[in-house]
Amino acid sequence: MYAVIMAGGSGTRFWPYSRTSKPKQLLSIVGETNMLQMTVDRLRKIETIQDIYVVTRQDLVAAILEEVHGIPEGNIIVEPAGKNTAPCIGLSALQLKLRDPEAVMGVFPADHLIIGHRKFSAAVETAEKIAVSNHSIVTIGIKPTFPSTAYGYIQYDTETRLEYDGVYLLKTFAEKPHQALAERFLASGDFLWNAGMFIWKVDTLLANLKEHMPELYEHLVAIDQRLAAGETFGDIWDGIRPESIDYGLMEKVGKSSYVIAADFEWNDLGSWNAVYDVSAKQEHGNVIKGNGMVLHGQNNFVQSRSRFTAVVGVDNLVVVDTEDATLVVSKDQVEAVKEVVEWLRKNGRVELL
Amino acid sequence: MYAVIMAGGSGTRFWPYSRTSKPKQLLSIVGETNMLQMTVDRLRKIETIQDIYVVTRQDLVAAILEEVHGIPEGNIIVEPAGKNTAPCIGLSALQLKLRDPEAVMGVFPADHLIIGHRKFSAAVETAEKIAVSNHSIVTIGIKPTFPSTAYGYIQYDTETRLEYDGVYLLKTFAEKPHQALAERFLASGDFLWNAGMFIWKVDTLLANLKEHMPELYEHLVAIDQRLAAGETFGDIWDGIRPESIDYGLMEKVGKSSYVIAADFEWNDLGSWNAVYDVSAKQEHGNVIKGNGMVLHGQNNFVQSRSRFTAVVGVDNLVVVDTEDATLVVSKDQVEAVKEVVEWLRKNGRVELL
Repeated sequence: MYAVIMAGGSGTRFWPYSRTSKPKQLLSIVGETNMLQMTVDRLRKIETIQDIYVVTRQDLVAAILEEVHGIPEGNIIVEPAGKNTAPCIGLSALQLKLRDPEAVMGVFPADHLIIGHRKFSAAVETAEKIAVSNHSIVTIGIKPTFPSTAYGYIQYDTETRLEYDGVYLLKTFAEKPHQALAERFLASGDFLWNAGMFIWKVDTLLANLKEHMPELYEHLVAIDQRLAAGETFGDIWDGIRPESIDYGLMEKVGKSSYVIAADFEWNDLGSWNAVYDVSAKQEHGNVIKGNGMVLHGQNNFVQSRSRFTAVVGVDNLVVVDTEDATLVVSKDQVEAVKEVVEWLRKNGRVELL
Repeated sequence: MYAVIMAGGSGTRFWPYSRTSKPKQLLSIVGETNMLQMTVDRLRKIETIQDIYVVTRQDLVAAILEEVHGIPEGNIIVEPAGKNTAPCIGLSALQLKLRDPEAVMGVFPADHLIIGHRKFSAAVETAEKIAVSNHSIVTIGIKPTFPSTAYGYIQYDTETRLEYDGVYLLKTFAEKPHQALAERFLASGDFLWNAGMFIWKVDTLLANLKEHMPELYEHLVAIDQRLAAGETFGDIWDGIRPESIDYGLMEKVGKSSYVIAADFEWNDLGSWNAVYDVSAKQEHGNVIKGNGMVLHGQNNFVQSRSRFTAVVGVDNLVVVDTEDATLVVSKDQVEAVKEVVEWLRKNGRVELL
C-alpha cells in the first residue's frame, strides 16, 4: 500500500497566518508541528504502508522538502496546475501504477487534525484489506459527535452485515447540510462525516474513473503515455476540467463501495472557528496563543506570535496578528476572510498574499 | 499675558499608540502634527501673549524639546512629580511671578482639539481683559452641541448683564453628568462644557489659593522662597496632596468669577471614541487611518500605521496597531484600556508601557 497526501491547497481561510507560499498544510495550526509533517508522521506509523507520496503544486516543492522530514524529492508528485481533487488523485494513481501496477493507494488530506493514531491505523488497515479482497472503493468516515454544518456526510447501509465490524456498504454522499438537516443526519445514526480519505487499488480507481468520469479518464490515458515515455504533460493537463472526487466520482459509485465508520477524533480545521474549537480554553472560554490578553470578553480566539495583542470588551472575535498583517474577524464571518484575500489580490497587494 | 500649557499627562487611554515616554500630547492624534505643537501654534497666534511656557514631567523634557518647535528650554517648567492640576498651576504661577509680578496667566491643556483659532483668540483676549480689569478668575467654557457625558459642565448666571457679549458670572462647576442630567444641562441653556482653560492674574490666583486651598498655598509659599534662592524644592513638593484645580478651587470660588461662552469647535480627545467622532468617515461610518480595510462592518475605527489590518464582520470596534502592540476594543469599553496598561504594569511588561 502507498499513501498519497494531497498537499496542494492554497488555504486562504487562514490568512494572514497562511500565505500563498506557506499555506495551511505547512503551518503549525495546532501544536508546534506543521500539518503535513503531522500527516506524514501519522501514516509512517502504519506498517502496511510501504511508501508515502505527496502531491502538490510546483511552487511548494522547495518549502515541503525543507520543512517536512521524510519525503524524498522523488516522492513528490507535481500537478502542473490546481484542478481540484479528481485530476490530482488520477495523476497520483498513474504515478503509483508506474512503480507498481498492483499498488493499493490510500489518499489522505495533508491538513486535517486526527487524534488517536491507533484507531486511525486500524481503520486504514481494514480499508486496505477490503480494497484488495473486494476490488472496491473504500472511504473512511468519522462518527459524528454533533450536527456539524461544516462537513459533508456519508450515509451507509445499515441492513447488509459484513465480515468486519464498523464496515458498511456505502449508500450516499451528501454535501454540507443546513442546521436542521445536519440534526436529522445525526439523529438517524447512519451518517458519517466525510473526511476525504479513500483507499482503493489503482486499477479499481482507474476503472471507476473510466465509467463515471470518462472525460477525465481520456486525459489520464494520454498523460499515462507521456509518463511512460518520460515526457511532460502540461498541455494535456491544461485541458482537464477541474472536478472534486466527491462530486465527480463518489456521488456516482454504486452500492459495491464501502465506508468504514471510524471513531478517532477528527477535525478538518476548515476555519479559525475550527481551530478555536480544538484549542485549550482559558478563563471565560478565551483561547490565547502567544503574546496576548483578553479583558472583559469571552470565547475569543487570539493568536499573536510576535507583538502583544490586547482584546478588550468583545466576545466571539478572532484576532490573528502576524509580522506584516493583522486580522480581526467576527466568528460568524470567518468565511469572509477569503474576501479579504480577494481584495488584496485585486488591489495588487501581492506582498500580503 | 503669559500662556502656560499643561503637558504632564500620561495618557494611558491611548495605549498602545501612547506610551509613558510618548503620551498623548506628543502624538499626532488628528492630522500630522502633535497635540502640543498644535496648542503652541494656536497660542502663538494670539498677539497679547508675550511668551509661552510648558509645564511637564522631567522625563518628557527632552522629547518636548525635540518634537515641539518654538519652546526654548528656559520656558519649560518641571514638576518634580505629578500632583494633578492645582499644584501644577500653582508652581507655574510662582515661576511667572518671578519673571513678572504683574503677570496675567492663561492656563491651557496641551492635548485638546480646537477648530476655529480666531474665535479661540478672541475668547482668550476677552478673558485677559476681564482678568485684569476685574481682578477675577476667568474660565472659558464651550457652548455644548450635544448632551455629552464625557465632559464636566459650567453653569453661568443668566440674569446679571455684563459689558462684554458672551461673558457671564460663574455659577457652578458640575462633574461629568449621567445621560439624563446631561440632557437637562443642554436643555437648560445656561451650561457650558468645562474646557480646562483659565485666565487670571498671578496674584489673583495666589490669593484665591490662599483662601480656598490654604494647605497647598503654604507649600507654594515655601517653594517660592526656594525658587527665589535658586534652590530645589522636591522635598516640599513631595508633601503636597494631589488635587485638581476644578475640585480644589473652581467649585469653591464665589460669584465674582467669570466664564466666557465660546463657540469654537472643541474636543478634549479623551478616548479613541472621541478621535473617531472628529475623524472623517469612510463608507458605512468606518474610520481607517493608515494601512487597513473594513469588510462587512460599520462605525469601526482602525488605525494601522505600519502593517496591514483587516477588520471583518464587526461593528463599533476600535483597532489600533503599533510596532509592538495591537489593541482591539469595543467602543463601549474604551475606558477599560487603562486596565490593560495596569495589567502590563503589574505583569512587568515595562517595554510595552
